[in-house]
Amino acid sequence: MKEIKQSCTNCNHTTKLSECYPRCPICNEPLTISLINSGSINYNASLVDPFWVRYRDFYPYLDNSINISLGEGNTPLVALDRVSSNLELRSVFVKNETINPTWSFKDRGSVIGIINAIQNGFDKIGTVSTGNMAASMAAYGARANLQTYIFVKGDMLQEKVNPIAIYGPKVLQVKGDYSVLYEQSLQIGQRKEIAFINSDVPMRVEGSKSIAYEICEQTNFDVPDYVIIPTSAGGNFRGIVKGFAEFYEAGIIDKMPKPVCAQSLGCAPITKAYLSGSNTIEHFGATDTIAPAIGNPNPPSGNEVLRLLEKYMGIAVSVTNDEIIKAQKELAENGIFSQPAGAVPLAALYKLVGDKIPHDSSVALIATGGGLKDTSALNYHSLEAETINITELVDKL
Amino acid sequence: MKEIKQSCTNCNHTTKLSECYPRCPICNEPLTISLINSGSINYNASLVDPFWVRYRDFYPYLDNSINISLGEGNTPLVALDRVSSNLELRSVFVKNETINPTWSFKDRGSVIGIINAIQNGFDKIGTVSTGNMAASMAAYGARANLQTYIFVKGDMLQEKVNPIAIYGPKVLQVKGDYSVLYEQSLQIGQRKEIAFINSDVPMRVEGSKSIAYEICEQTNFDVPDYVIIPTSAGGNFRGIVKGFAEFYEAGIIDKMPKPVCAQSLGCAPITKAYLSGSNTIEHFGATDTIAPAIGNPNPPSGNEVLRLLEKYMGIAVSVTNDEIIKAQKELAENGIFSQPAGAVPLAALYKLVGDKIPHDSSVALIATGGGLKDTSALNYHSLEAETINITELVDKL
Repeated sequence: MKEIKQSCTNCNHTTKLSECYPRCPICNEPLTISLINSGSINYNASLVDPFWVRYRDFYPYLDNSINISLGEGNTPLVALDRVSSNLELRSVFVKNETINPTWSFKDRGSVIGIINAIQNGFDKIGTVSTGNMAASMAAYGARANLQTYIFVKGDMLQEKVNPIAIYGPKVLQVKGDYSVLYEQSLQIGQRKEIAFINSDVPMRVEGSKSIAYEICEQTNFDVPDYVIIPTSAGGNFRGIVKGFAEFYEAGIIDKMPKPVCAQSLGCAPITKAYLSGSNTIEHFGATDTIAPAIGNPNPPSGNEVLRLLEKYMGIAVSVTNDEIIKAQKELAENGIFSQPAGAVPLAALYKLVGDKIPHDSSVALIATGGGLKDTSALNYHSLEAETINITELVDKL
Repeated sequence: MKEIKQSCTNCNHTTKLSECYPRCPICNEPLTISLINSGSINYNASLVDPFWVRYRDFYPYLDNSINISLGEGNTPLVALDRVSSNLELRSVFVKNETINPTWSFKDRGSVIGIINAIQNGFDKIGTVSTGNMAASMAAYGARANLQTYIFVKGDMLQEKVNPIAIYGPKVLQVKGDYSVLYEQSLQIGQRKEIAFINSDVPMRVEGSKSIAYEICEQTNFDVPDYVIIPTSAGGNFRGIVKGFAEFYEAGIIDKMPKPVCAQSLGCAPITKAYLSGSNTIEHFGATDTIAPAIGNPNPPSGNEVLRLLEKYMGIAVSVTNDEIIKAQKELAENGIFSQPAGAVPLAALYKLVGDKIPHDSSVALIATGGGLKDTSALNYHSLEAETINITELVDKL
């Protein structure tokens, strides 16, 4: 086996896996684990084996004796036949990541990141998040019995703190400029020996790549033409693209799906750069989105997403709040209740179909997190119950 | 194959599967599908096949061409090593049913019930529920594109209606005596050709039995000594017991786990009857429980649960609200955030261990639904975040 290294996504500066850098020491772009370009699926993996055992050839650096799985991954791929028929597409699939231990895709990256931290001798972990990642890290930190630090915004409401704090981590409400915390936490982590597993660190990207592996298997290796990914920091986008690229390089699939970066119009730094032909993103400034899970105005992997879009002939697109709400309703009317961010791909599909996504294509949408994560978004819908007297029931039906 | 019939759980009066009775026409006790006492696991089932294909020998009456799966079932069985060590038990497993398409075990019964309804020519379905089952039926009704009626209580808050209504069913807030709606809906259903798939109808029990099948496989057929089930109407209890009984009769496992009916002290009609040695339950009267998901004071399958407890040497137990909250926290501190009802089995285990459940036993706990279903319960915990200024971070860690 070739040595697995860590290299810069931009300048290819290479370091050993054991050397812990938050970003490239040369150009400050995000790091990545080497593309693993050979291997096969372990079909002997059992029902109870976690995904990194099923795909162990693609996680050669992971110590399989550390078992902190909560049953993450192996999420359903659901075909939306009414949608594909309406839009004249060959097929529309939803990868339903809301069916994970903490009800979002973040669990994949948390578990891989924490196993790696344990391997490297850490007994303290942390993250900077106000949402899905916070709950996920809190849960896996509890599972692994590690001291866990969660940095949330200073003004976070108690009702939002509760579903994170229930797992028992140390929740720190940080007063001051929250936007600088991402990098600051990685620096503090190095000094204080806390493994900060933030949104786009290499091991979180490694977790996300399993989404692509599963889609390959679930489509019987007839992979979709397009994969639409709600994109914020860029870690999940990078992971899914890396997963397909690894299976492609390994000869397990024979084409690369085109990746689509889907953002909210009120927070679209990557799409803005893509449309203007720039190869670097700029801070988006003030945001206005009903999908806070993809509300990062200055995504740390933004430039790398732009590079991947170019390399794999991808598309970036943004959708309005109204389009997101409409898509959230349509997903639910097909049985899948996602948080607003998880509906962004369907909204994006409506924008692109017949144009950049030709009719008769096959498309996979990534539904990233569950609808119960953000019930306040339901107030944007007109949801009404009819009041009826029990004595009138027979007549009314 | 022997003919699959429907018979009374009490008097054995038998009818054909196609005859739709809400309860036994002779003694008014619940009906059940025949125990299927032979068959084997279909190991050729693929990753994308639903559970009723994997266990098709035990669902011989089901039309496999109707695919309305949302990826329900196949939930993780997580070993809580710290808990088993503390309680001097051989093993403690949690069957994590919170990782289902609508985040509760109800999805198993909804999908089987709806497939059966479609087979029998229904194009309208319904249920009586204010919680997990309402959301589940709404989601699967949407998935199957059927007219779906959900009867909720007249005074239900809009914020509780929303996560049901998002799927697009007809939500009817029924004013009047909600407690008579269970049977009344089944009668109305017969007249109006609406398939009411309520909490303990035979096909919902058939869905729940898959929980037992999966536990058998996940423990490599070394099934636990005890299975602790939060119990309300009794349908899930009946299903899980039936699943183990079928695998036992078919020779797939070589012992029957002892079932434990776990109730909330503030709503414990079955435990009350069990402790008094009665073989029939009485209406519990006013209830006081922080676990509304198991808050049925007059469980329609209560008497059948008592019969099963006797037949399989089971136990019934009840736990206080404080014990439930404590158990909810401990589950979360092991990585699993359930709604209060889902923590009742762990609370029950604490009550029974060293006494009715001997040390060194193996135990499975059924975590029935996700914690985000009922975030108001989090107010009973002391969950606090520490506020910190960004400039103090390094010193504080």
